[in-house]
Amino acid sequence: MTTVAAYAAPAAKAPLERTTIERRPVGEFDILIDIKFAGICHSDIHQARDGWGEGIFPMVPGHEIAGVVSEVGPGVTKYAVGDRVGVGCFVDSCRECEYCEQGLEQYCAKGMTATYNALDKDGEPTYGGYSTHLVVDENYAVRIPEGLALDVAAPLLCAGITLYSPLRHWNAGPGKKVAIVGLGGLGHMGVKIAAALGAEVTVLSQSLSKQDDGLKFGADHYYATGDPKTFQELAGTFDLIVSTVSAPLDFGAYLSLLKTDGALVNVGAPEEPVSMNLFSLIGGRKTLAGSAIGGIPETQEMLDFCAEHGFGAEIELIRAEQVNEAYERVLASDVRYRFVIDTATI
Amino acid sequence: MTTVAAYAAPAAKAPLERTTIERRPVGEFDILIDIKFAGICHSDIHQARDGWGEGIFPMVPGHEIAGVVSEVGPGVTKYAVGDRVGVGCFVDSCRECEYCEQGLEQYCAKGMTATYNALDKDGEPTYGGYSTHLVVDENYAVRIPEGLALDVAAPLLCAGITLYSPLRHWNAGPGKKVAIVGLGGLGHMGVKIAAALGAEVTVLSQSLSKQDDGLKFGADHYYATGDPKTFQELAGTFDLIVSTVSAPLDFGAYLSLLKTDGALVNVGAPEEPVSMNLFSLIGGRKTLAGSAIGGIPETQEMLDFCAEHGFGAEIELIRAEQVNEAYERVLASDVRYRFVIDTATI
Repeated sequence: MTTVAAYAAPAAKAPLERTTIERRPVGEFDILIDIKFAGICHSDIHQARDGWGEGIFPMVPGHEIAGVVSEVGPGVTKYAVGDRVGVGCFVDSCRECEYCEQGLEQYCAKGMTATYNALDKDGEPTYGGYSTHLVVDENYAVRIPEGLALDVAAPLLCAGITLYSPLRHWNAGPGKKVAIVGLGGLGHMGVKIAAALGAEVTVLSQSLSKQDDGLKFGADHYYATGDPKTFQELAGTFDLIVSTVSAPLDFGAYLSLLKTDGALVNVGAPEEPVSMNLFSLIGGRKTLAGSAIGGIPETQEMLDFCAEHGFGAEIELIRAEQVNEAYERVLASDVRYRFVIDTATI
Repeated sequence: MTTVAAYAAPAAKAPLERTTIERRPVGEFDILIDIKFAGICHSDIHQARDGWGEGIFPMVPGHEIAGVVSEVGPGVTKYAVGDRVGVGCFVDSCRECEYCEQGLEQYCAKGMTATYNALDKDGEPTYGGYSTHLVVDENYAVRIPEGLALDVAAPLLCAGITLYSPLRHWNAGPGKKVAIVGLGGLGHMGVKIAAALGAEVTVLSQSLSKQDDGLKFGADHYYATGDPKTFQELAGTFDLIVSTVSAPLDFGAYLSLLKTDGALVNVGAPEEPVSMNLFSLIGGRKTLAGSAIGGIPETQEMLDFCAEHGFGAEIELIRAEQVNEAYERVLASDVRYRFVIDTATI
C-alpha cells in the first residue's frame, strides 16, 4: 500500500479537504499513474453531497483523469513508463458478460466498478482522481494521443465520451441535423464533436448568453429555448437531439422538434420522474432514449478522434484548494466550460 | 354522387344506427370497392364516442376494410374489376413530402387523410368501412393476396400493420427475444407476426387466462404481469417489447425487462401523460419509442407476408346490427380477438 495525497469529502455535504489515502500495490496487470489533471464533473458534486444516497465516505471524487504512467506491473503489455494515459468513470467490470465482451463495459451485466464511491472486487473503496496517484488495471486505462494536452484531455474522459458515444450510436454526421440541449461541460463537447463529425449543429440553450462561444465551438445555429418562437420555427427539424441538462424538460415540446424517426437522447437527467404523452412518440415513430458514458474501445476512439481534429475541452484550470469554490460555481453554471484541478497543487 | 348504406354514430356517444351516406363519383384514378368486411378497432369506439374530441358527425367508423373492386376510373392501372383489395387507416396524403416519397404516408408532413372522421382535400368528410361501398384513389388501396380470406384479412389493415411495422423496423427475427404486452386485437397479431418472423416470442398479459391461445398463436412463453415474480425472472431479457395496451404502464418495470440497447415500443397509449424516470433509459442505452400503423408499401408487404405464412386475424364475425353490443364487449376486453362486420348485413 502506498500513502498518497488527495482531496476528499470527509462526510456527506462536508467541504472537501486535503487528506491522504492508501493506493493498492501495483499488481501484475496494474499501472501506477502519476495524475496530472482531474476534471470536475457535476456528478462529483452530487455524490460528494450524497445526492444519490449511500455514498462511501471519505470520498475522493474525480473520474476525468489524465496523467503519466510511472510504474507497470510485470504482466502489463499495453503501457510503459512515461506513457500518457487517462482513466474515466470506471476502473473494472466483470470482463465476462456479453456487454464486457462487446467493449460496452459501462453496461456490464454485473455492474462496472466506478472510479470512486464504489467497492472494488476485494471490497475496498475506490478513490478517484482528486489525488496525486492512481493504481488501475491496464485494461481500464486509455492512451492520450500526442498533440492532446493533458489538461484539456482530462474532461474528455467523462464529458467527451458521454457525448461522443450517443452522437456516434445515433449516426450524427454529414446530412444530419443535430441539436445539443444545454451548453455546459457536456454540451460544449457535444457541439465540438457533432461539428467535427460533419453534422449540422444547433445549440438549444435557455438564453443567447453563450451564443458566441457556441458558434466558435462549431455550432451552425443557436436558439434560446426561453423564446416560444423557437419551438414553432424548429418544429420537425432534427434527426437527433442530445439533452445534457438535468432539469426536467417539456418532452412534448422537444419531441416536436424531431423529424419522423428522430431520437431525443438524454445524457443528463433529473432525479425525479418526468411526465410525457406517448402520442408525442407515436406520431412520428420517435425515440426517447438514454445513454451512459462509453466503453473502453469507444473512449479510446473518442480520444483519437479529438486529437485528430485538434480539440480538447474548454477548461478553467484551478488549484486544489479552490475545489469547494469551484463546486459552488458549477452549481451556479458559472464555468466556461469545465474546471480542471492541477493535481500538482494537492 | 352515389347513396350507399352505412352504420353511423349520428352524434358523439350516440349508438350507431343504419343510415345512408353519399360516396363521391369514381374519379380518374379512383376505384369503387364493394366492401365485404370491416373490422372493429378500439379507436373506432374512441372516436365514435368523441374520446379524442372534435369528432365529425355523423361518423361512419371503420378502417379495416376488405372488399372487391367493382368499378375503376379511366386512369386506374393497378386494379381491375374483381380484384380483392383492402383499405386501412388513411385514404390520401400529400404525396410530395419526404415521408410520402419514402412510402411512409402515415407520417405525411402535411398529415394523412384519415379513412373516416377527417376532411378530404375537397373539404368533404370521409366515411369509413361500416358501409357497403367506398371510393378511394387506387394508390391508397392494397391488394389482398389469394389464399387470404377477406374476413380474416380485414383486421390486418390496422391491427396487422400496426404490429408488423414496428416488429420489422426494430428487427424482430431469428435470435431476437420479443415480448408483446397485451393479447387483444393488436397483441394477438403481434404474436403471430413476431413468431412468423422467427423471433422468440413472449406474451406479457395481466393474467394467464389467454395462455392457451397465446401459445397457439406462436408464443414460446407466457407470463402474467400481475405476478411480481415475472419482473424479477425476466429482468434484462428482451431485445424488443411492443406494448399494445392503452392503460398506463409502470415504464420503469417494463424497461427493466430490456437488454442493453433494447427498445420498448408503444403502439397503444393512454390518453393521459405517463411518468417515468430517465435513469431507466440511461442505464442500458434503452429506447422508449412509438409507432403508428404503416405506409402503403409496408402494408402490402405485410399482407403478402401473412398470406405466405398462412394466417390472418382471429375474428368473431358479426351482423351490422350487433355493432353497439360489440363495442361494449370490446371495452370489456370480451372479444377473441377482433370483431368483423359482415357488411352484407348493413
